[in-house]
Amino acid sequence: MYEVRPDEVAWIRRMLTYNCIGGKMNRGLMVVETGVVLFEAQGKPVTNDDLCRFAVLGWIIEMLQAWLLVADDMMDSSLTRRGQPCWYKVDGVGPMALNDAFLIEMVMFKVLKRHFGDAPEYAKLLDLLMETTLQTELGPALGPPFTLDRWTMIVKYKTAFYSFYLPVAMGMTMAGIDDRAEYDAAREILVIMGVYFQAQDDYLDAFGTPEQIGKIGTDIQDKKCGWLFVNAYHGMVDAAGKKLLDGHYGKCKVGSKEEKKIKQLYKDIDLEQLYKDYEQKSYDDIMKLEGTCKQVPWAVFEIFLKKIFKRSK
Amino acid sequence: MYEVRPDEVAWIRRMLTYNCIGGKMNRGLMVVETGVVLFEAQGKPVTNDDLCRFAVLGWIIEMLQAWLLVADDMMDSSLTRRGQPCWYKVDGVGPMALNDAFLIEMVMFKVLKRHFGDAPEYAKLLDLLMETTLQTELGPALGPPFTLDRWTMIVKYKTAFYSFYLPVAMGMTMAGIDDRAEYDAAREILVIMGVYFQAQDDYLDAFGTPEQIGKIGTDIQDKKCGWLFVNAYHGMVDAAGKKLLDGHYGKCKVGSKEEKKIKQLYKDIDLEQLYKDYEQKSYDDIMKLEGTCKQVPWAVFEIFLKKIFKRSK
Repeated sequence: MYEVRPDEVAWIRRMLTYNCIGGKMNRGLMVVETGVVLFEAQGKPVTNDDLCRFAVLGWIIEMLQAWLLVADDMMDSSLTRRGQPCWYKVDGVGPMALNDAFLIEMVMFKVLKRHFGDAPEYAKLLDLLMETTLQTELGPALGPPFTLDRWTMIVKYKTAFYSFYLPVAMGMTMAGIDDRAEYDAAREILVIMGVYFQAQDDYLDAFGTPEQIGKIGTDIQDKKCGWLFVNAYHGMVDAAGKKLLDGHYGKCKVGSKEEKKIKQLYKDIDLEQLYKDYEQKSYDDIMKLEGTCKQVPWAVFEIFLKKIFKRSK
Repeated sequence: MYEVRPDEVAWIRRMLTYNCIGGKMNRGLMVVETGVVLFEAQGKPVTNDDLCRFAVLGWIIEMLQAWLLVADDMMDSSLTRRGQPCWYKVDGVGPMALNDAFLIEMVMFKVLKRHFGDAPEYAKLLDLLMETTLQTELGPALGPPFTLDRWTMIVKYKTAFYSFYLPVAMGMTMAGIDDRAEYDAAREILVIMGVYFQAQDDYLDAFGTPEQIGKIGTDIQDKKCGWLFVNAYHGMVDAAGKKLLDGHYGKCKVGSKEEKKIKQLYKDIDLEQLYKDYEQKSYDDIMKLEGTCKQVPWAVFEIFLKKIFKRSK
């Protein structure tokens, strides 16, 4: 149909496999888990076909994640991802990885059409996927000053919508939930979770051990505007601390004397306690919203929460 | 709705303007021209609303072209485009241009939804736009050996579908043409035109004067697998010519002694005549297909043909 030769099909398959497989698959699995809980709550039996459909939607989110990461790694000049070289760093790939990112995206839409093109939910699923993609792309387009408020907004767009809201919204769509207020209520809970998840990531980058997080944190070297940095820089440090950050944040190597000084500064101003308070507050904020979603059992949100609350890796 | 600040909206608007405006707009205008001819042939009056709808679709193709070019320029490390720096080369943009390319793409789909979301043609237009996007992205994924056959296939996918078939197919959709055979017949004609158009581009890069083409041709320096090169390399040159191309094609500067030698080689093997024969054959092949499209007046194809046949710029 597309006049693509077997060796080119093999190349595209390798590219898809390389980039879509190897993550924790939390996002994809959440579609399946949400779908099962919702069907059971509605007294609907979950057939094998239903499970396959949930799984296809799960893989669609994993594909979305894949091209976002391929593109992100190029923009950030990253070297490794999931314990292997970033796709654009692989021999024989190079800048063409950019086209591959677009290709994964369109294959993703094609998979949706192949499996759901004739289904009554198609228009809604497509709309949801496009809307979430646009929101995710708007994240990096949001500008300075990178205060905590801005950080929260960027993370909401760049991460929370596609990682937390999308899997649940897909499950809700499959369960035939039509009421817009239900989606709004679910989104409010899941965005808090998504933002908290990113704060955790940033916290663990500096305070987690390499054994815990499975990699060596490089946020300080990479000048990442993470949760720790925005809190420290905007309000918590004195003139000397600001001078240290201005002089060395993003300009020092992993394991260097300067990086250690910055980590010590984080400890001196007790960012750990601030993070623990923030963690508890996020948890409390989420729990306060129990019951706001009438058609989605609280168990759906609890599954997510169990996966992430106080995680150390 | 998207919590984007006015200064960020201004930035996105600047980005869209910078990249969508400034081309010849042949693709966009062809939607309008096709729509008008088809409506008139059907005895339907063309209202101002119709013209606006055609124009929106035209701009959608210009947006498609915009993000393809933003991405292409990054992959090719190009410096200028349409007489101004490539977007990723603009101060303050850099690698983030990659996110901008994805953003233009999603804004394009959003514009389609905004203007056609409630229209009966929406599903078909969306499908057409997605299918064409996927085809265009498959082009660069096609591999060697870069013979004339492969060149033709790559150009068909990378250029002909979105530049020639898409505008006419959009007009046909708006005119309510439903018969798949009509689309197939139109595609056959327009793909020949699109491939010929690219061959022209490659020919003019070496044989056109800078005054004619408005830029200095850099295909030899950039190691482009263009129509001239694939013809020369695969079959036309002797051992000495092959050695010259192997040694210097893609490794010499614009205006260098080596580039002049390659251009002289092109003249010695009479690529100009081969091109002129090819041009005539393309024209004849297209004219032979007159009448294969029953519901699309030949005038539609003639408008395109007039724009491009024997163009010198």
